[in-house]
Amino acid sequence: MQLSAIYQPIQEDLAEAENQFRLLAESEQATFPELHQLLSHVLIGGKTIRPALTLLSGKFYDYNIGRLLPMALAVELMHTATLVHDDAIDKSDVRRWRPTVNKVWDEDKAILLGDYLFAKAGEFAADTKNLRAIKLFAQTLKIISRGELKQSFDAFTLEQSREHYFQRISGKTASLFVLATESGAILSQAPEKSVEILKEYGHSLGIAFQIVDDILDFAGTEEEMGKPIGSDLAQGTLTLPAMLLLERYPEDNPVKRIFQGRDKEKNIKLAIEVIRNSSIVQECHKVAADYHAKACHNLNLLPDKATRQALVELADYIITRKK
Amino acid sequence: MQLSAIYQPIQEDLAEAENQFRLLAESEQATFPELHQLLSHVLIGGKTIRPALTLLSGKFYDYNIGRLLPMALAVELMHTATLVHDDAIDKSDVRRWRPTVNKVWDEDKAILLGDYLFAKAGEFAADTKNLRAIKLFAQTLKIISRGELKQSFDAFTLEQSREHYFQRISGKTASLFVLATESGAILSQAPEKSVEILKEYGHSLGIAFQIVDDILDFAGTEEEMGKPIGSDLAQGTLTLPAMLLLERYPEDNPVKRIFQGRDKEKNIKLAIEVIRNSSIVQECHKVAADYHAKACHNLNLLPDKATRQALVELADYIITRKK
Repeated sequence: MQLSAIYQPIQEDLAEAENQFRLLAESEQATFPELHQLLSHVLIGGKTIRPALTLLSGKFYDYNIGRLLPMALAVELMHTATLVHDDAIDKSDVRRWRPTVNKVWDEDKAILLGDYLFAKAGEFAADTKNLRAIKLFAQTLKIISRGELKQSFDAFTLEQSREHYFQRISGKTASLFVLATESGAILSQAPEKSVEILKEYGHSLGIAFQIVDDILDFAGTEEEMGKPIGSDLAQGTLTLPAMLLLERYPEDNPVKRIFQGRDKEKNIKLAIEVIRNSSIVQECHKVAADYHAKACHNLNLLPDKATRQALVELADYIITRKK
Repeated sequence: MQLSAIYQPIQEDLAEAENQFRLLAESEQATFPELHQLLSHVLIGGKTIRPALTLLSGKFYDYNIGRLLPMALAVELMHTATLVHDDAIDKSDVRRWRPTVNKVWDEDKAILLGDYLFAKAGEFAADTKNLRAIKLFAQTLKIISRGELKQSFDAFTLEQSREHYFQRISGKTASLFVLATESGAILSQAPEKSVEILKEYGHSLGIAFQIVDDILDFAGTEEEMGKPIGSDLAQGTLTLPAMLLLERYPEDNPVKRIFQGRDKEKNIKLAIEVIRNSSIVQECHKVAADYHAKACHNLNLLPDKATRQALVELADYIITRKK
């Protein structure tokens, strides 16, 4: 199913979110043209999954768009800011089929633009005028950057348990999904039980999303992904497929060699090949599917609206996506 | 006058702020020792002028420490976060007599630690439970990063007016002083007129502070400053002393040569020497003194408390400081 079809119940408001981003970039056109260019460069081309989650999660009770829209914008901007910083850290050249900020401009601009986006996200979060949602927003950014720090310190470390892995992706990815869904619930005055259900949906969906992301970094294609594959290994990030490879060939395998700094490029290619041609991809998909099931498990306890179906479809999309 | 004497009316609460930072670092000791080390590294040794301003500004009306203390912490953490990112951008080796995060660890850790600190600052800001103060907090971070971006794009540009300069330092420095004083006023339920007075005090004081900072980058010593001097020119940042030098010798002068990439090191030394041995330092101090006067001008409209005197003394300290 296409994302546009899934987004149908919130189509207009999601379009308005994109319009707001355009206006944000345009607001700098006259006074600070370089910032206008930076904003225009990064504020287009995303899948807008996170703001869609906020809006969809807000659809079950009081759909107060005056509060939900700012949070949807905040969530997407926070996501964009982390991508801009990640690319600077990873020295990535390409993202979403376009050169990165650190590539077109430089690392300094990427750091400062990311800070600007975090701030603007915070301003949107404040516009919800809901203290609980605001606090959750700030806590989420803390959890994400803590998770990213953990990943940075763990880079090129072979001794990592699966628990390690799940903790890491919970911090760096699932927390933002939780913010998206939980804030949608909070801002629509959902009863606590429903807040909890949507929060758990966000968490499991986020884990599933990241596992699929980690699979695609081996099994995807550069054309579809809009960025090079094998980048996790290049950065020394041990993801689930690589872990499974290590478990299968504990004595000697390309991941081990990469982490030991031996023939990096050659071994990345080899690792990709081995993983693609093994059942590892399938096994990882199985784990993602478990989280998909977990995500959708309690949704039927929410009011029976078209949105509930959309959340299931979005989960389906996320585990079957090729990009 | 010593800072400790000026801080006397808020001594205990400022000590509690420092205690909170210690606790923040310690909270990571068991679970994430590397983050504990990072936090311990950056959360000590500041002059704590900004949190002191928040607490002092809150002393005129309802001194609600439960709301003022989180904002004081937020303000100082935001400041620290910008320093950590600035040092990564400038590739600075030393700050506050200690090696920088990017020097001891690397640039990646500096980016992520800065993000973590912004987030933690946001969480403290949310703890004030005051929507106006929270919004002001987010807007300030936006203004600061926009100002830093402007500085980055303007680097090594000779054609900059004084208006340019004042706009820039207003964004990157004075805005945080404004946040400190204005939020203190807001959180203590000050009447709007007093909020305005403390806001203007913060603005003028911030401008004066930055001018003195820019003077000290030429006229100070590395020992007292705890970081190398001449760093603004090395980064291509045109500050007031350098502008005056350009105005005096429009044909040929060391600043022009540095910005044109000619004999950078030699010309930085020369620029420092020329500025030190001219009346430029004095002239800049005169401009700073004007802002000092502007800052203090309306303070007598505030209730006559010991704190009013402390704000004047702090302004005195700021324009006479050697570090």
